[in-house]
Amino acid sequence: MSETVFSKIIRGEIPCHKVYEDERVLAFLDVNPLSAGHTLVVPKEAARTLDALSDESAAAIGRALPRLCRAVIHATGVTEYNVLENNGGGAHQAIEHVHFHIIPKPNHTEGLGIGWPMRPLDPADGARVAEQIRAAIK
Amino acid sequence: MSETVFSKIIRGEIPCHKVYEDERVLAFLDVNPLSAGHTLVVPKEAARTLDALSDESAAAIGRALPRLCRAVIHATGVTEYNVLENNGGGAHQAIEHVHFHIIPKPNHTEGLGIGWPMRPLDPADGARVAEQIRAAIK
Repeated sequence: MSETVFSKIIRGEIPCHKVYEDERVLAFLDVNPLSAGHTLVVPKEAARTLDALSDESAAAIGRALPRLCRAVIHATGVTEYNVLENNGGGAHQAIEHVHFHIIPKPNHTEGLGIGWPMRPLDPADGARVAEQIRAAIK
Repeated sequence: MSETVFSKIIRGEIPCHKVYEDERVLAFLDVNPLSAGHTLVVPKEAARTLDALSDESAAAIGRALPRLCRAVIHATGVTEYNVLENNGGGAHQAIEHVHFHIIPKPNHTEGLGIGWPMRPLDPADGARVAEQIRAAIK
């Protein structure tokens, strides 16, 4: 696990606009926000991607999210928002330490832009892929 | 809390390609996937948005996510992916019951499309907004 800017923020070696901290989780403002109130929620455990994070850290992030979302709504007055966690450079991950974005969506131009190239699921493909995923769950 | 298609799926009244279930969480394939393996992770608790979900359901979803991400990676062979949860119609929420998407990103055209209109955070704005969010956390 390589060192990232988030490791330094967690250790207090780089300042941040902190909004929340508990034993396993730190939350602070993104320094390049997509909209006012754009917040990052980070596990103190250093894992590059969500699939490599412990259940305990992932549960702690999950538990913190509703109260953080409520606080971001209250502070910004914006009730619509996206929660996003990216894994891998091709999926728009910039810092190699798991982080969940809470991104207020105040209007059409600010906040997260979403492209949604959906196609209907072929039932036979669905049955096959679901079986493969079920079989892969440890 | 109004009835949605997810309530019916959770009660077994509408079929789904189920991949995982525990006391609080159900996961199944999206019927309009952005890429093969696109999975929805849903709390059995009916809440429209993440800010309205209980800490316990949110923690249970968080705890399930790493193992589900590993299983989707294993089944699809695609290691890059996005985890997305939308809140409100303007933020691309289609079903009014909290759901986390796990969306494999196999290439540039399939999977989630992301628009990222970032701007540098003004330090004074950051200090003010962070204080407002901190003050709003109950």
